[in-house]
Amino acid sequence: MQHAIPYGAADYFWAEALQRQQLTGNLLETFRRWGYGDAIPPIFEYADSLSAQASPKLRAEMYRFLDRDGSTLALRPEFTTPLARLVATRLHDWPMPQRFCYAGSVFRYVSPQAGRQREFLQAGVELIGASTPEADAEVLALTVAALRAAELADFRVVVGQIRYFGGLLADLKLSPEHEDALREAIDRKSEPALEAFLRDVPLRTQQRRTVEELPNLNGSRLDQIIDQADRYCLNYEMHAALENLRAVCAVLAAYGVTDAVDLDLTEIRNLGYYTGVTFEALAPGMGFAIASGGRYDDLIGHFGKAQPAVGVAMGVDRLLLARQRQRGEQRSPHPPPPDCLAMTGDDPTALAQVQRWREEGQRVQVEVNGRTPDDVIAYARKLGIARVLRWTGASFEEMEV
Amino acid sequence: MQHAIPYGAADYFWAEALQRQQLTGNLLETFRRWGYGDAIPPIFEYADSLSAQASPKLRAEMYRFLDRDGSTLALRPEFTTPLARLVATRLHDWPMPQRFCYAGSVFRYVSPQAGRQREFLQAGVELIGASTPEADAEVLALTVAALRAAELADFRVVVGQIRYFGGLLADLKLSPEHEDALREAIDRKSEPALEAFLRDVPLRTQQRRTVEELPNLNGSRLDQIIDQADRYCLNYEMHAALENLRAVCAVLAAYGVTDAVDLDLTEIRNLGYYTGVTFEALAPGMGFAIASGGRYDDLIGHFGKAQPAVGVAMGVDRLLLARQRQRGEQRSPHPPPPDCLAMTGDDPTALAQVQRWREEGQRVQVEVNGRTPDDVIAYARKLGIARVLRWTGASFEEMEV
Repeated sequence: MQHAIPYGAADYFWAEALQRQQLTGNLLETFRRWGYGDAIPPIFEYADSLSAQASPKLRAEMYRFLDRDGSTLALRPEFTTPLARLVATRLHDWPMPQRFCYAGSVFRYVSPQAGRQREFLQAGVELIGASTPEADAEVLALTVAALRAAELADFRVVVGQIRYFGGLLADLKLSPEHEDALREAIDRKSEPALEAFLRDVPLRTQQRRTVEELPNLNGSRLDQIIDQADRYCLNYEMHAALENLRAVCAVLAAYGVTDAVDLDLTEIRNLGYYTGVTFEALAPGMGFAIASGGRYDDLIGHFGKAQPAVGVAMGVDRLLLARQRQRGEQRSPHPPPPDCLAMTGDDPTALAQVQRWREEGQRVQVEVNGRTPDDVIAYARKLGIARVLRWTGASFEEMEV
Repeated sequence: MQHAIPYGAADYFWAEALQRQQLTGNLLETFRRWGYGDAIPPIFEYADSLSAQASPKLRAEMYRFLDRDGSTLALRPEFTTPLARLVATRLHDWPMPQRFCYAGSVFRYVSPQAGRQREFLQAGVELIGASTPEADAEVLALTVAALRAAELADFRVVVGQIRYFGGLLADLKLSPEHEDALREAIDRKSEPALEAFLRDVPLRTQQRRTVEELPNLNGSRLDQIIDQADRYCLNYEMHAALENLRAVCAVLAAYGVTDAVDLDLTEIRNLGYYTGVTFEALAPGMGFAIASGGRYDDLIGHFGKAQPAVGVAMGVDRLLLARQRQRGEQRSPHPPPPDCLAMTGDDPTALAQVQRWREEGQRVQVEVNGRTPDDVIAYARKLGIARVLRWTGASFEEMEV
C-alpha cells in the first residue's frame, strides 16, 4: 500500500492552496473584463485530437491511457488545442471573433530529475477569428494587465515573430543538418556555435550579414530593433514579419505597456503550432517562462474551417512562485486562521449570531470538540487564531488568547 | 483523426461555463466562512491509495493507467480519500480539529448507456479530528447553508445512521445470503422483497418486529422517528446510533435548519467508508443526490494515525441542473455578452478609457477586426451586445444597436 504520492504530483493546502484558488479567480476575472468568456474543455479526450499540431516533445510528454472501448485517451497537456477543436467543431457557425478564457490543470510527463510538477495549473485566453496586429496586441496587453493585476511587480514580456527567421531559412535553402545547426546556435544564443556554422556553410555576403546580425536583434528599444532588422531583410516574408511587429508595437504603445515589453527576433523555439507573433513573460531569477503565447493561424483548420487565432497561457504556480520570491514571502507556519473561534454550546441564539457574522463575510469556526476554555485557547494560540469568543448565555465574551 | 470527444466527457462554454466557475467559487467561499481551509490534492495518484476503503463499485469505476516507472496510477474518483491520506501522512502532527474544503473534477467510468458524465465537478468539506454530534451537525448545517447560498430553492437533506442497521445485523446473525437479501430489500425499499425475507428466515418475535418496522422509520418528524426507532432497539449499538441522531438533531434545531431535514433509517447503501451518520441532499424531480456525506472514522487510520472525521461532497453540475430546472431557466442562445463593445482605433486616449472601465469591473470588448460600424453593429445584434461605443477622437459616442 502506497501512502506517498507519485513523483511530480503535489498536495496543496493552507495558504498555498488558498492563494492558488484566489489567483486563478483573479486571472479569470481580469480576462472576463476584457470580454473573454469562460470555456471548460474535458481533462481527458482522444489522444489524436490533443496531438493535432503538438511538437514532438509535447506529444512525448502526454499521459495516454486506454478507454474501455479501446480508444486512446490522454490527459490534456495544454488548453489551446482542445479549445481549437471546440470552436472548429461546435462554434464555427457563430460570428467571429470569439474570445475564450480558461483555468485548470494540464499534465505533462517530465522525468523525476527535472524536479518539476507533472500536473500544473494554467490560465489563459484565446482570441479566435482575428488576424490583425490589433488582435496580437490585445493578447499581449492583456498578458501585461493580468500579470499586473496578479501583483507581480517585476517581469518582462519578450516578443518574437517566427516569420522573420522563417523567411531567412526560406532564403538560405540549407540542408536539414545545417538548418538544425543554425536553429540550435540561435536558440541557444551560442556565439561559438554560430561562428562554427558560418565557417562550415557557404553563404552569399548578404545572407551572411543577416545571420551575423540576428543575435543582436533583441532588447527594449522596440522601434530601433525593428528598423535595424529591416536593413537585413532578404525577402518579403521577413519584411512582412517586421510590418506586423511594427503595427503590434504601435498598439502596445497606445495601451501604454511598451515599458514591460522587449523584442527578440531570435525567439525561434520549436513551438509546434505558432505562425506569427510569439512571446514569453519572464521574471528575474526564474529559469522558466511565467506565460507564453503567440499566433496560431493553422491549428483550428486542423479540426474544421480555418480561423486565425492568438492566445496566451499562464503558469499559475510559476506566477505564484515568482510573486512570493519578489515579495520575499515565507511559507506560513500554520493554516490561515479564521477571523474568530466561537464557543457556542448548542445555544440557538449563539449559533444565529455566528451565522450573521458568516453572512457578513467573516470566517468563523465553531468549537465542536467540547473542549474546556483553556484547551480552546491553547489550540487558538498554536494556530494563530487571534480571537476566541465564548457564549455566556446572553452574549459573546472575548477571551484572552 | 477524431474530432469529437469521448462519451461522457463534456465541453462547457458560454453561460454554462461561467455559472460552473461562479457556483464553485461561491461554494468555496461559503465553506471558508465556516472556517474551512482550501486543499488541492492531485488529479492522479497511486491507484492503491485511492482504493483504500472504496466500495467495490467505486474501485471498478476508477480510471487506472501506468506511470512510466511501472506503478499504477488512477484519476481521483472523489476527494475524501486523498484528503484522508494528506492529513494522515503530512498533517498528523497538527492540532485537531482540521477543516478542509475543496472543489475540482473527479472521474468515474460509467457505461455509455447511463448517459452520465465521466468527469464531473465536486465541491465539499472534511471536518477531521472531531467525533461529536456537534461535528456531524456542523457538516449537515453547512450543507444546508451552502445549498441555500447557491440559491437552490427546493431540497431536502435525508439523514441516516448506519449503526442502527449495523446493530440490527449484529443481532440477527444472518447467513451472507440472507444478509444480502435483507440489505437489498431495505435498500430498494421493496415491500415484497422484505415479506419474502421474513417468510424465508426464522427470526425471534422481537427481531421480526424490528425488521418489519424498519421501512417506517423515515420522514420529517425527527424526534418522533427517533422515539419510534428507540422502541425497536435490540442492543447497545442501535441505541447508540439513536443517541447520536438525537444529539445531531438538537444541534440542527439550534442551527434552525431542521425544516430542510428528513430522517431515514433505511439509508444503508454500500457507502464504503462510512461509520455513523450518513446523508444525501435531494431535489424534487432529480433522480440522483445533489450532495452526499457522512462520518468515516476508520479511513484516516488506513494511512496513519486514526482520526474521526465527517464530510460532504456536492455535485456542482447536478446542483446547477437542479437550480436551472427549479428556476425554469433556458439555455442562453449566445455567449454572455460583454457590457459594451468599443471601437477605439489605436487611439491611446480611447484605450486608456477602456482600461479605466475594466478596472472598475466592466466587461469591455475592443473591436480588433477593423470592421465598419455597420458590420460591428450587426455583430453586436447577433450576440446580444447592448452597447456599442465609437471613439470620435475626443470621446466615445454611443451607436444604436
